[in-house]
Amino acid sequence: MIALPYLVFLGDADREVGVKTAQGVLYWRPDQVAGQFRLPGCELDLGIPDMDFDAAVAAGARTVLIGIANRGGIMPERWIEPLRQALEAGLDIASGLHQRLSSFPALKETADRLGRQLHDVRHWSGPPLKLGTGEKRAGQRVLMVGTDCNIGKKYAALAVAQEMCARGIKSTFRATGQTGVLIAGAGVAIDAVPADFVSGAVEMLCPANDPGHWDVIEGQASVLHPFFGQVTLGLVLGAQPDALVLCHEAGRAHIRGMPNRPLPSLTATLEAHLAAARINNPAVRAAAVSVNTGGLTPEAAEAALEAARAETGLPATDPIRHGAGVLADAILARR
Amino acid sequence: MIALPYLVFLGDADREVGVKTAQGVLYWRPDQVAGQFRLPGCELDLGIPDMDFDAAVAAGARTVLIGIANRGGIMPERWIEPLRQALEAGLDIASGLHQRLSSFPALKETADRLGRQLHDVRHWSGPPLKLGTGEKRAGQRVLMVGTDCNIGKKYAALAVAQEMCARGIKSTFRATGQTGVLIAGAGVAIDAVPADFVSGAVEMLCPANDPGHWDVIEGQASVLHPFFGQVTLGLVLGAQPDALVLCHEAGRAHIRGMPNRPLPSLTATLEAHLAAARINNPAVRAAAVSVNTGGLTPEAAEAALEAARAETGLPATDPIRHGAGVLADAILARR
Repeated sequence: MIALPYLVFLGDADREVGVKTAQGVLYWRPDQVAGQFRLPGCELDLGIPDMDFDAAVAAGARTVLIGIANRGGIMPERWIEPLRQALEAGLDIASGLHQRLSSFPALKETADRLGRQLHDVRHWSGPPLKLGTGEKRAGQRVLMVGTDCNIGKKYAALAVAQEMCARGIKSTFRATGQTGVLIAGAGVAIDAVPADFVSGAVEMLCPANDPGHWDVIEGQASVLHPFFGQVTLGLVLGAQPDALVLCHEAGRAHIRGMPNRPLPSLTATLEAHLAAARINNPAVRAAAVSVNTGGLTPEAAEAALEAARAETGLPATDPIRHGAGVLADAILARR
Repeated sequence: MIALPYLVFLGDADREVGVKTAQGVLYWRPDQVAGQFRLPGCELDLGIPDMDFDAAVAAGARTVLIGIANRGGIMPERWIEPLRQALEAGLDIASGLHQRLSSFPALKETADRLGRQLHDVRHWSGPPLKLGTGEKRAGQRVLMVGTDCNIGKKYAALAVAQEMCARGIKSTFRATGQTGVLIAGAGVAIDAVPADFVSGAVEMLCPANDPGHWDVIEGQASVLHPFFGQVTLGLVLGAQPDALVLCHEAGRAHIRGMPNRPLPSLTATLEAHLAAARINNPAVRAAAVSVNTGGLTPEAAEAALEAARAETGLPATDPIRHGAGVLADAILARR
């Protein structure tokens, strides 16, 4: 569990390419971001108050969030001393970089001495992982699945969880990727878990719960993805979803980064994920389609939604454009 | 690459339950086992010469194989000093236990000082892992798939590779599990690889090769397994097999350790693995069925093979009982 709110650390970053994590946290948890910390020469600005570490602590911040993903996920040496000072000032640190915070002796020694937490969300550091059981658990679960990576599964899950919360339905967003973990302050980046333990890690992430409680589980990739499929299958097996929401981006023609691989159809994608989910829950059902229509005109967006409805026979909406009411209705319809 | 032959280390083991690794190596690579090393009180005997470390080195042994898997995969402290002496005598050490050899300071320091290798085959320590590409590679590949774990996939693959070798066909057994790696002296225990990298690790394990060369790839679990399915899917995606051999154990009624889960049928298992393999190779074909008939009478074994033929329409044999000729013929039939 990461202590919130965050002070977002932008370092001396000079381009926007790697600021997705910070933007995601700001979009979904604006109340949990106290401000930003920038080194001289930083060319980024999230449009929130600049603070030094003492001011951030005074404003209630608990954790420095490294909001930048450099090429290669490498931490510049010149960030270490400022981050060490953040620990001295009373803050924990959370990072989604590949390199572990604890691999820097100055950070590890300072954190150990002061009892501060270093959260490397790309590396599991919680209780020992267990193998899955495949046994169905109490409580309801909806899992986002999709036609590809980076297609809107995290945003759909967060929108559904927010909508359920607004309706007073007991529900919890369950993060399965690094940015999701940083947004939620908890979760498991399942792609970094040893393959054997993925399903068990997901079982641990969304354990047995009240019969009326909904886990709204962030999706990853697709079981049909040419080299990430195994991450998705482990997620489906461990989640044991009662309902699936199929996520898609309007107009995406081929798998990201693979121009020769046409995207599978919505129905083929849905059928593949239903087949996988039936292994542990034969009663799983497809609830709705979430279409990312960002950048389209209202007319083109509506045409994309209508096409998704026609192909699948399911309700379809863009939860960012129209809110997640349609998705929540469909998920809850046949509890 | 593990230097062979082995001296098999049995410690002071008092039961046979955990000797599978040693037995597998002895069965498949008898020429690569120089002898056994036993501590006082050891109740096991593999029926091969007892040797101390100096005698083993003189007999050509290069690596001590820890042939025992204790409950929990834990190394008793009393084994450390004898193992350290093995390093001093000139031997490397290979282990399939969970606990890393290098986590014992006495072993690590001695190995570092003398330039000896410590092989923890359950932990990847080769070149940095890469993500998969999903791109088809030159060369032919056959992958063992199965209805469950521990059903005969490793033995089938080793028998096929041996048969191809006897026929003068260029081929290589590719190990994907810890015992397979210890038998082959090389490979990747893919279940211990971070989920993201499983398909890429398998691509690295069986890289592009001569058009006529066959990789004979050890299988793992099943894509329909309730909590190990992700390991299998990553293997299928990375292997990009041209042919599948379906492995099954006659009479197994339910998934191992899950009495409430009936085993999927041969045809359902085959179809699920073909669907997964078609993601990266639409031309994949089912070649044959390998049935483990151990313990059955000849008549019952033939009935089990006939049932497999009738259900799948494919050739079927037990490669341990009858040799792998039928499997090799079927794999090579439509190159």
